[in-house]
Amino acid sequence: MPAIPPMDKSERYLHKITKRLGQRKLGQVTKILRKMHPAEIAHIFEALKPSDREIAWPLIDSDLRGETLVELNEEVRRELIGFTKTEDLVDAVESLENDDLADLVDDLPEAAMRQVLESMDNQDRQRLESVLSYDEHTAGGLMNTDTLTISPQVSLNVVFRYLRMRGEIPDLTDSLIVVDREDAYLGVLPLALLLTHDETMNVAELMIRDIDSIPADLPANEVAMRFEQQDLVSAPVVNESGQLLGRITIDDVVDVIRDEADHSVMSRAGLDEEQDMFAPVTLSAKRRAVWLGINLVTALVAASIIGLFEQTIEKMVALAILMPIVASMGGIAGTQTLTLVIRGLALHQIGRTNALVLVGKELAIGALNGIFWALMVATIAGLWFNNPIIGVLIGCALIINLTVAAFAGATIPMLLHRVGVDPALAGGVILTTITDVVGFVTFLGLAALYLR
Amino acid sequence: MPAIPPMDKSERYLHKITKRLGQRKLGQVTKILRKMHPAEIAHIFEALKPSDREIAWPLIDSDLRGETLVELNEEVRRELIGFTKTEDLVDAVESLENDDLADLVDDLPEAAMRQVLESMDNQDRQRLESVLSYDEHTAGGLMNTDTLTISPQVSLNVVFRYLRMRGEIPDLTDSLIVVDREDAYLGVLPLALLLTHDETMNVAELMIRDIDSIPADLPANEVAMRFEQQDLVSAPVVNESGQLLGRITIDDVVDVIRDEADHSVMSRAGLDEEQDMFAPVTLSAKRRAVWLGINLVTALVAASIIGLFEQTIEKMVALAILMPIVASMGGIAGTQTLTLVIRGLALHQIGRTNALVLVGKELAIGALNGIFWALMVATIAGLWFNNPIIGVLIGCALIINLTVAAFAGATIPMLLHRVGVDPALAGGVILTTITDVVGFVTFLGLAALYLR
Repeated sequence: MPAIPPMDKSERYLHKITKRLGQRKLGQVTKILRKMHPAEIAHIFEALKPSDREIAWPLIDSDLRGETLVELNEEVRRELIGFTKTEDLVDAVESLENDDLADLVDDLPEAAMRQVLESMDNQDRQRLESVLSYDEHTAGGLMNTDTLTISPQVSLNVVFRYLRMRGEIPDLTDSLIVVDREDAYLGVLPLALLLTHDETMNVAELMIRDIDSIPADLPANEVAMRFEQQDLVSAPVVNESGQLLGRITIDDVVDVIRDEADHSVMSRAGLDEEQDMFAPVTLSAKRRAVWLGINLVTALVAASIIGLFEQTIEKMVALAILMPIVASMGGIAGTQTLTLVIRGLALHQIGRTNALVLVGKELAIGALNGIFWALMVATIAGLWFNNPIIGVLIGCALIINLTVAAFAGATIPMLLHRVGVDPALAGGVILTTITDVVGFVTFLGLAALYLR
Repeated sequence: MPAIPPMDKSERYLHKITKRLGQRKLGQVTKILRKMHPAEIAHIFEALKPSDREIAWPLIDSDLRGETLVELNEEVRRELIGFTKTEDLVDAVESLENDDLADLVDDLPEAAMRQVLESMDNQDRQRLESVLSYDEHTAGGLMNTDTLTISPQVSLNVVFRYLRMRGEIPDLTDSLIVVDREDAYLGVLPLALLLTHDETMNVAELMIRDIDSIPADLPANEVAMRFEQQDLVSAPVVNESGQLLGRITIDDVVDVIRDEADHSVMSRAGLDEEQDMFAPVTLSAKRRAVWLGINLVTALVAASIIGLFEQTIEKMVALAILMPIVASMGGIAGTQTLTLVIRGLALHQIGRTNALVLVGKELAIGALNGIFWALMVATIAGLWFNNPIIGVLIGCALIINLTVAAFAGATIPMLLHRVGVDPALAGGVILTTITDVVGFVTFLGLAALYLR
């Protein structure tokens, strides 16, 4: 057995913190936590037992707690908020950026939220409301409002003076946004250009006009794709009339990409990526039960199909032994097509123009593999039960089931996508219901016809 | 039925380009392609039929072709390289950054690569070799060598003059890297600080020293986690003696995150994310056949287990009708645990300190759901076959199988992880083999004992 892989940084932190917590060396835990970024703390907290979280939470520096809450998954976040006094909460969150604060609004107790709002000036409150007026999963929900804007008429010299006077630049600012007097978006001035050109030039001469602004209602996943494809660090967000509302930065886009990826993996197993890995057993059991219940319906449908052929099976028990093979091969083949198509749809690489080509291609693959594995399995089954007829029956059933599986695997996600249902969540259940039913009906049905 | 969702930008491009290609309006295709970024072009090309790709490829501006190749998945990239004359290839790739060129090295024909190397100066060739000496999936393989370094002794004024003289700054530069005369990494000077401080200050006074440099051999996924957790745009890469080798930028990290996500979804279905969605049917069929073959072995194992109980089933055909329920419920419950644990391992949130707690929790959930669904299914089965004994048998089998499934779902990925096998690829197959076998053995075995 190879050596145990070395621990990475977060594993080492996790190890140390758990150990020190166990030894009740809280001072040392505080020291370790002080060296960590909020996202790192959040990451470790998700991996701690709830009882350890409660002990370690007050040890975090109060100015890091707000950002740590933002980075946590919803469930752990709510748990920690539950441990915290209202005044400490207000302290923790009041210095957050608007987009981050907006993410917390649903989870904060009303009293805390009221105090935070009262502590804000009018402009900040308006800005927060602007972020809150957009869905969380759109550009408007992702944007923060701490933009650095400049006018096109001024010279670079003036810009330099302005920045020095300001004394700081918001995090992840790679360009200044150029707007007119009515706040209409005109273009951007990358810091790289600002730094490499003659100070006497005007912003208007140097600014880049062909950087598309992002409409506030653009879905988050399309925002992410734009950042990925254009290698952006930040991008301006505008309303319908082209006025600047704020900007989106790459750190939030990375979170979108990670969440999307998490969601697509977790939802295939009927899990929710915002839930706590260490949620109480009874709660977790209840949640999982829903998915098991849905799948039980599928299994009962399949069982009732088999039930129709009770007499056929009585005549030939070999059928009962072999029938799971037909269903399972169909399920596997269909899942391959399904996975490919769900991914293509998510990346917008499958559209009206190529959907038919793809369905045709998948059908051909299904039929080819159907024929190939039919021959293999037919030979095995024929020899096993010393009965070539059984081989012929299972072979025919496999060809039909793998072809149907390919068709279903390709078309189900397209249909679900069109009616607005997440194919990653529902696709697998529907597909295996079909491949089970078709598998059992064809194999047992053909046998029934033969044995009649 | 709801309205068809509106097409997003890439879908519109895909639609237009496919249509114009069909009409042979190549001039218009050229115009559309000219408006697109290389990553967008790559995205569309992956979604085109191979015959359309061959027609559209020469229409791309030659200075965009290199970057487009970098962005494509391996298979489509090789296909397009196959369409291209050596001299055009050399033209396309010779202006690429070192990290991008390094990604292409394996796919370029030798003649082209030789010409590219000959066209480089000594320094560039050495830098490329430095990138190539590291595994593609490490910091060293991700880095590019176009770093902007400054000395700690100079004043900001000197830095400004240097940048203006240089006339340009590499893409995605958010900070200048401070090194000593021996190229040892000392710290970074963020452009944001440079722009907001007095020009007479020294770099040494202002630079940030506590930004960790990234060791060249750090695995790519840990690089990605560091960028995510610390909201980095770029980070310096160093060798073992602390000398600066290059830097990693967020665009490449985003690609790592996307690829990882893709990989974890696709590998669960035995698919490779670097393969072409429109690969030839026979090639695709062959690739898929491997996965079907592995799963056939699983199915045959399950079938042979059922075969052991042939006589039991003969006595009571209801067993054959109900047995898939036991296996499938176990598979579903186990997959939930498996998915949760694979994700926790990938995020380094499961380590030695909490693995046992998690296994215990999953076992409890499995047992609880086992009992709950055992009662439900036992009632249904008892009523269905008007035989309470059948209910008792399936109930006991479900409790055992769901508990085993939880244990297997939690421990299999941990064991695979420890021996260095990708749990996303192999975990599912092993798990369902176990849940099938245990499901059939317990249900049919208990029935055999009862019917003896």
